[in-house]
This record gives sequence, structure tokens and C-alpha cells, in this order.
Amino acid sequence: MQDRTLLMIPGPIEFEPAVLAALGAPTTSHLDPAFIAAFGQALQRMRDVFLCPDGQPFVLAGTGTLAMDLAGANLVEPGDRALVVNTGYFGDRFGALLERYGAQVTHVRAPVGGRPSLDEVEDALKQGQFKLMTVSHVDTSTGVIADVRGLALLAGRYGALSVVDGVCSVAGEELRTAEWDVDVVLTASQKAIGVPPGLALLVAGPQAIDAFRRRKTPVANYYADWGNWLPIMEAYEARKPSYFGTPPVNLIWALNVSLGQILAEGMDARFERHQVLSRACKQAVAALGLAQVPVSPECAANTMTAPLYPDDIQGPELLARVKEAGVILAGGLHPAIRAKYFRIGHMGAVNQGDLLATVGALETGLAHCGYQFHPGVGLTAAASALAES
Amino acid sequence: MQDRTLLMIPGPIEFEPAVLAALGAPTTSHLDPAFIAAFGQALQRMRDVFLCPDGQPFVLAGTGTLAMDLAGANLVEPGDRALVVNTGYFGDRFGALLERYGAQVTHVRAPVGGRPSLDEVEDALKQGQFKLMTVSHVDTSTGVIADVRGLALLAGRYGALSVVDGVCSVAGEELRTAEWDVDVVLTASQKAIGVPPGLALLVAGPQAIDAFRRRKTPVANYYADWGNWLPIMEAYEARKPSYFGTPPVNLIWALNVSLGQILAEGMDARFERHQVLSRACKQAVAALGLAQVPVSPECAANTMTAPLYPDDIQGPELLARVKEAGVILAGGLHPAIRAKYFRIGHMGAVNQGDLLATVGALETGLAHCGYQFHPGVGLTAAASALAES
Repeated sequence: MQDRTLLMIPGPIEFEPAVLAALGAPTTSHLDPAFIAAFGQALQRMRDVFLCPDGQPFVLAGTGTLAMDLAGANLVEPGDRALVVNTGYFGDRFGALLERYGAQVTHVRAPVGGRPSLDEVEDALKQGQFKLMTVSHVDTSTGVIADVRGLALLAGRYGALSVVDGVCSVAGEELRTAEWDVDVVLTASQKAIGVPPGLALLVAGPQAIDAFRRRKTPVANYYADWGNWLPIMEAYEARKPSYFGTPPVNLIWALNVSLGQILAEGMDARFERHQVLSRACKQAVAALGLAQVPVSPECAANTMTAPLYPDDIQGPELLARVKEAGVILAGGLHPAIRAKYFRIGHMGAVNQGDLLATVGALETGLAHCGYQFHPGVGLTAAASALAES
Repeated sequence: MQDRTLLMIPGPIEFEPAVLAALGAPTTSHLDPAFIAAFGQALQRMRDVFLCPDGQPFVLAGTGTLAMDLAGANLVEPGDRALVVNTGYFGDRFGALLERYGAQVTHVRAPVGGRPSLDEVEDALKQGQFKLMTVSHVDTSTGVIADVRGLALLAGRYGALSVVDGVCSVAGEELRTAEWDVDVVLTASQKAIGVPPGLALLVAGPQAIDAFRRRKTPVANYYADWGNWLPIMEAYEARKPSYFGTPPVNLIWALNVSLGQILAEGMDARFERHQVLSRACKQAVAALGLAQVPVSPECAANTMTAPLYPDDIQGPELLARVKEAGVILAGGLHPAIRAKYFRIGHMGAVNQGDLLATVGALETGLAHCGYQFHPGVGLTAAASALAES
């Protein structure tokens, strides 16, 4: 079934053997004292990984979209205004989701590959009283990174809660939740958090919890209702048995292993490692003559790279050739440019060897497709970038 | 972390090594042709395990409660009437969930340990036009089994969709979805389906899909909206790549292994094995002088047993002693009798040896607690029941 082909897509990614071992270990009861201790520790570690010591962590069986639901369904009441800082597919999704819960949604958009300026966002915030503002930290469809720090500052100034979709960022991109006054950060397990898919993760700061407690209407979504899960998360963190739904026991054991590894590396070191490897990837791609979807280096994520296919190269053939060379990359996702670009994920357990293998496989694939370049030019650029850092 | 203590609770249960191995194997892309084939096969196998060849299967990251949401959120529109055949905690939950989506809910209840008669349910169905009727096939809080066949027949006669919470029944209790005209069956992975917790599973028959398509209002729950997932399930079954949210890849590999094992055993053989082991457990419990929560043998489930503690025995001490003897049992869950009973799960990969080990550990625990009985009387009763079958 599985083999040693490297999985270099923007999630799922390559996972640490210790994480996979925990996932495949015999299942414990969800009320076993050892599991309660592991889940409690995982919740505490989430505060540290999300850099939000006063936040309330939630861990549920689900996908990143459920994590978005955990924010939208609990914070929106019918008629609330919401601003979506839209940098791609997942901004569109967040808007649709918020509308489902009755929000009046305003999108601030930019051309594909760009991001709205802080001035544009501020102008939008001035247009009305927004209950919340959502930001895709890294929109996986474009590889564009948002200026979360600047945006959260604006949201706070205009009295809006800041909700960050950190699906392709948490534990990879610099994200200082409390220090930057971000109210909610959410993610999914299969990205830089380093656990196979199946967990929705969210940390809500005090103002978000307050907004939830001040709701006048019931949460429209039963499963995602924080009211069901808050006592459960508090109980596990207090090392007490409790029950609402059976937690995804094996995934939570695996999560605790991965969070422990992340904190052992240290958040600052981890952010820097992602920046270094990203720079190496992007310089290699540039040396090979490939442009990228993000319109400028400042708005390009560190967890992934989104190169455009060279002219006259068939995307599906290139990806097939790269896979033959041992590395799986992802096709496009953004509807406006789907067939024009591909995506390389480099986050979580990714290391220098993975990155070089990826650039090497890309060179092999390009050569097979008849693309003209000096063999090794990508690898040399990557090696230079790594040597400089 | 984990050890060889037997996990004999009503889920999670002991899982097959091949299932755990699949869970802990390196993660594939959700778009890998091998994974697409495995997911497609798992969906087809669900039709066979649920005995619903014309049903539409759904597999999502989530818990059993999400599976209930997948039914309630998609079938209920505000103002619809719903009848809950209530045999415990999970009937209460289904009622609360349906109300969240705007249903006017009527409960037909019985005293704890009993179940409403078909006449009582029919009387209730006569009181109004119900859009749907929910039934907990086995309410895990009481160990009471419902007469799904008779209830579904009634629901059909009165024009209500029948929705069966099969969380503690599917792949353990006899449940012939299509033959019995059941419209929706849902479950969670960690019960008799035999996969660690984290998957919500549902099969919707043609009338349920029709009712969904005839909705006049949007589904109030974004993540659970069948509209988001139907094209995805159809695509995987057609072995085509597609994307809405990242599927829980490892759990789905494991699911496909477990479904293959279930079908290799055969559904009829599997139902019978559960009946035989259940009879052995219940006769052992009776021989030890312990009463059970279900008021009569006809309404006692085959996937679990819910014995009452003997007088003068402290429940927590008994369970601790049983655990010392190598078997984990579950305490009570139903609020009205929580401290008076305990629960033994015997489903999925459970075998004769597990059952005898459980009865033996129960005897050891009872003896430690000073309970008077002839050592071996439970084991003898279990062995007799096994020999007769």
C-alpha cells in the first residue's frame, strides 16, 4: 500500500515514526487514567504551541473545515457582520461557512497571488461594526501568507474578533497568538502539527470565549457547539474523567507525541527551520526559471511553495515524472488558475534531505518533460540558500 | 502506555492487529490512486456491511454524535415533527440534537431498562405527521435493544423516515437496512465496526436522499451538510480524485481492512457469534446472581451486557479489582442509575477467550469485594452456553 515515496504536498505530510507508532498502538479506553493524562498534557501543550497561554484549547475528531465550523458556528449569530480577508479558496469557504450561520459577510479580496493591503482592510473595517474578521494565515490554494500581526491589530482597533485559519501555518509559520492579540486560531492535524488527518484543533482566547458566553441564540451546529465540549476539555486538563463523545483516542495519543516533539525543538527554532527550508525551495524554483503564484516574496508562505508550470510543460505529466523520481507533489486548487501551477508542501517533520530530494525530483521531472535548464541549478541554489542560513 | 489489559467496554474495544497496523502505516496522499481505490472499496463494503445495497454511504472524520448530526441536520427543517423512540441517554441526546435543527420532538419513553411497545409507538405516530422517527438500536447507557424491524415497519406505514442510531449495533446486531426498510443507519468506528475512534459512518437510503434533495431551507450545519460530501463520496466510489476536506486517511485505510474482515466472516455468521457470546456473558452474570438493567431477555442487546452491582458491593472498587485481574469494564452512564450498574462490551473482534477472561476477572473482582458465590459458577455457566451453541 504505502511505500517510501516522499509526500511533499501541503498536507498530509511525512510524519515522524514515533507519531505513527502511537497512532497504531493498541487503543486505550477514553477514560483510562493514562489516556486522561496524555490528553490533558496535549491540551496544555497546545497552549504552548499556539503561544496562547490563556487560551482554551479544543481537540475534536474532524477536519480543518470542522475547525472552521468550531469558530464560525460558535461566534456568529444571525445578522452579525463578518469580514473575510480573502487570499484564495479557503477565504471563499470561510465566507460561505459564516453565511450558513447567518452572518452578513464582506470579502476584502486581492488578485490571485496577492493579498489585500492593511489599508484596504482598514477601509473595510470602517464601513460597519464587524463582529469578527477571518484571515487565512496561509491559503493553501495560493501559498499566500497574510500579515496576521498587522491584521489582528486592526481587528482589535475596530472591535472585531480576529479568527485565524492556521490550517497550513500553526507550528510552521510564526504565529504569536496572545502577543499579537489574535482571538481564535484553528488548524488541522495533518499539516505542520505533524499528525495524520482526523483532528480539528482550535484555541480560543478569552474574548472569544466571552463572545460565546454572551450569545443570545443557541449555536446552530450541535456537534461543534463549544457548550458541549468546554466541560470535557476542562475535565481532561484537570485529569478528571468525563464524557460527551468518544475522543479519537489513537489520534490524541499521536498528537501528544507530536506536540512534545514540537516543543522540544522550540517554537522559535521551528519557525526559523521552516523559513530556511522555504527559502531554499523558493530559490531552487527561481533558479529553475519557474515563477510562483504569490506576487511577491513578502506574501509567500514558508510552509509551502506554489510554482507555475513553465510554458509548454503539461502539468499532469510533470507531476507524474516527479513522482516516478520519488516525490509526490500536489496539483493546483484555486479554480481560477488550477491547471497552471503546482504545490510543494514543506512543513512539520520536513528536513534538509527531504527538500533536496524534492528539488532533485523536480529537476528529473522537468528534464523528462523536455524543459531546458542546467542540471543541478536548482539543487545548487537550494544548497546555497541552506549554506547562507 | 498501553498494555495487554483487555478492553471490554462498549467502545472503544479490542481491535484486530491488522487494523492497527493499517492505522499506523505511513500516511498516503488523499489523492493517491491506491488510497482512492481503498476508500472506494470501503464505501462499497459499507453497503454490504449495512445490508443496504442501494444506500449512499458517508465516511467523515468525527464521532458517533457527528453521525447523528449527519442525520439530524440534513433531514430536519425547522418545524418538522420528529418522534424519538427513547430507551436511554442516547435517545435524550438525539432529541436535543433534532431540536437544535428546529424539530418539534416527541419522545416515547419506557422506564429505565425497558422499551416502548410497538403499540405505544404506533399510538404516538398517529398523533401527527412525523417527518422522521429515530431509534437507538442499542442504547449504550442501558444495554436495551430496540425492535428495529417492527419500528421501521411502523414508521413506513405512517410516512415517517426511520433513522437508526446503530452506534453500538452495526456489524454486531442483526440489522437488515434495506430488507427492513430502514432509511438511515449511522454508527461510529470504535464499536462493532472494529476501527479506533475517529470516524462517523452513515448510510442513507433512497428516501432519505430524496428528503434531503427536497429541502426548502439550507442545512444549518456546514461541516455535516450532505451537499458538501455527496460528490466526494461519489467520486471516491467512482475511483476519481476529488476534494472537499482532507479525509482521515489512516483511519480509512484501517476501516477498509476491518470491513474486509467483517465481510470475510459473513454478516449472518457475525450476528450469530455476537448472539452466542452475549448469551454466554448473560448466563454467567445470572449464575453469579447479578441482575441486569434490561427488564427482560428480549430487550437485552447482544453487543453488551449491563449488570447491576450486587447489594453492599462498591462499584468503583469492583471495577478496580476486575482491572487488576486484567479486564477493563465500564461504569454506568444513565443518569438515573449511574452508580448502580456497570457495562461489559462484547462486540467486534471479541472471541470466546476474551469472554471467559472477562467472566473470570469479574469473579476475581467479586471475590476480592467479599461477595459470596461458588468460584467458577460464572465460568461454568458461560462454558455451558458456549457448548450449547
